[in-house]
Amino acid sequence: MLNSLHARIASALRDQIVSGELRVGDTLPSEAQLGVAWNASRGPVRHALATLKTEGFVESAQGRATTVRSRQLTQRVDTFLPFSRWAKEFGRTPSGNTIEISRRRASTEAAQALHIERGEPVIELVRLRLLDGVPTMLEHSTFIERVGRQLFDFGLDDGSITDFLRERGVTYHAVIQVLDAVAADAQDASLLGVELGGPLLRQRRTASDVDGTIFEYSDDRYRPDLVTFSVAYLRPEFTRG
Amino acid sequence: MLNSLHARIASALRDQIVSGELRVGDTLPSEAQLGVAWNASRGPVRHALATLKTEGFVESAQGRATTVRSRQLTQRVDTFLPFSRWAKEFGRTPSGNTIEISRRRASTEAAQALHIERGEPVIELVRLRLLDGVPTMLEHSTFIERVGRQLFDFGLDDGSITDFLRERGVTYHAVIQVLDAVAADAQDASLLGVELGGPLLRQRRTASDVDGTIFEYSDDRYRPDLVTFSVAYLRPEFTRG
Repeated sequence: MLNSLHARIASALRDQIVSGELRVGDTLPSEAQLGVAWNASRGPVRHALATLKTEGFVESAQGRATTVRSRQLTQRVDTFLPFSRWAKEFGRTPSGNTIEISRRRASTEAAQALHIERGEPVIELVRLRLLDGVPTMLEHSTFIERVGRQLFDFGLDDGSITDFLRERGVTYHAVIQVLDAVAADAQDASLLGVELGGPLLRQRRTASDVDGTIFEYSDDRYRPDLVTFSVAYLRPEFTRG
Repeated sequence: MLNSLHARIASALRDQIVSGELRVGDTLPSEAQLGVAWNASRGPVRHALATLKTEGFVESAQGRATTVRSRQLTQRVDTFLPFSRWAKEFGRTPSGNTIEISRRRASTEAAQALHIERGEPVIELVRLRLLDGVPTMLEHSTFIERVGRQLFDFGLDDGSITDFLRERGVTYHAVIQVLDAVAADAQDASLLGVELGGPLLRQRRTASDVDGTIFEYSDDRYRPDLVTFSVAYLRPEFTRG
């Protein structure tokens, strides 16, 4: 069975963008030109353009032509900003899909990171984060029980857990983030839509309160074609303070 | 032909470390215990331990037992520090192996990064960086010709190009670094000893002088099992200045 006309128009334009035939900033053909090229009325053409806009491939301001949008965003590492706030700063719509929230015994890795005994109860959350509907990051967070159990009251799919916990009185006193690269495992590949074993940008984080208690450990995996991390140095001193 | 006894002892211990049977911080058997286990005199045992120490797998303080050392170093992203200085700060011995230095016409990517026309002459350098003899990072640097031609006077294998250029009067006024992850290509895999397509941590950098002229663009690929990047936030504000 053939796809509908609007889906075929959207697919052809998407292929041109992904292949690099159309580059970031390039102008798409006008609605009229697309109508002629596809022998289509305005309806399917507009439907196709709206789809690409929702997917984040193109943008168009009022009365302006539709242009190819950069899908890669950068996150500055000199400020700590929760995912959902960072997304909004770039005019993107963040959303989430909670894969699992569970109370379980700490794994060796989580116990080491949280400075607790292996087997102590923790709250684990796996959540897929999306930008404009596109799967962008897979979040694995582990909380000590006292803090994490508050998350059972939380509408988890959207919104910032950091903001939610802060409103409940949890103090983020110190946050340490470590960036590296890992090969996508089966869950990463299936949820993020990448190849098994392909490179992902990983951000691990521990957060502690004012007493030095580590209450959160997370392992967030980003699609590197969609997100980078950056830092700027002005007049670097070349010395360590 | 059999390997010498010291090489076989070193190889067996190395395998135990790499497999995780011996973990970071674990104490190795004493020289006497190894001697009994391998029916070996002190010479080969000490030779094996010295080899592992040089390779960075183990460490031993005066009069103390030999312990398994973490091979993963972290680079703080809140300060800009050239590779060789950073390595020395951790007590590691940096070295380098220049694969290629060339004067050529700028590729599309380099031209875009350096804000020059495609086809303008640039100086390109490919250099393998090692820590304690272990291949750790593959550096691809591209310089505008005026700056890069000074590198033909430089003993390139060791040492910091950044320091060398600064001594020649080049001003690093602003440096922007972007971190992401890439799949190892054939050259990466062969020189860094990783699997083709496996994840590498990539640091791209542009450096500009006080007039805003971008004079350096580099693409450095790190083995993520050996190096991570980290940043600490104390009392994060959760706002952007």
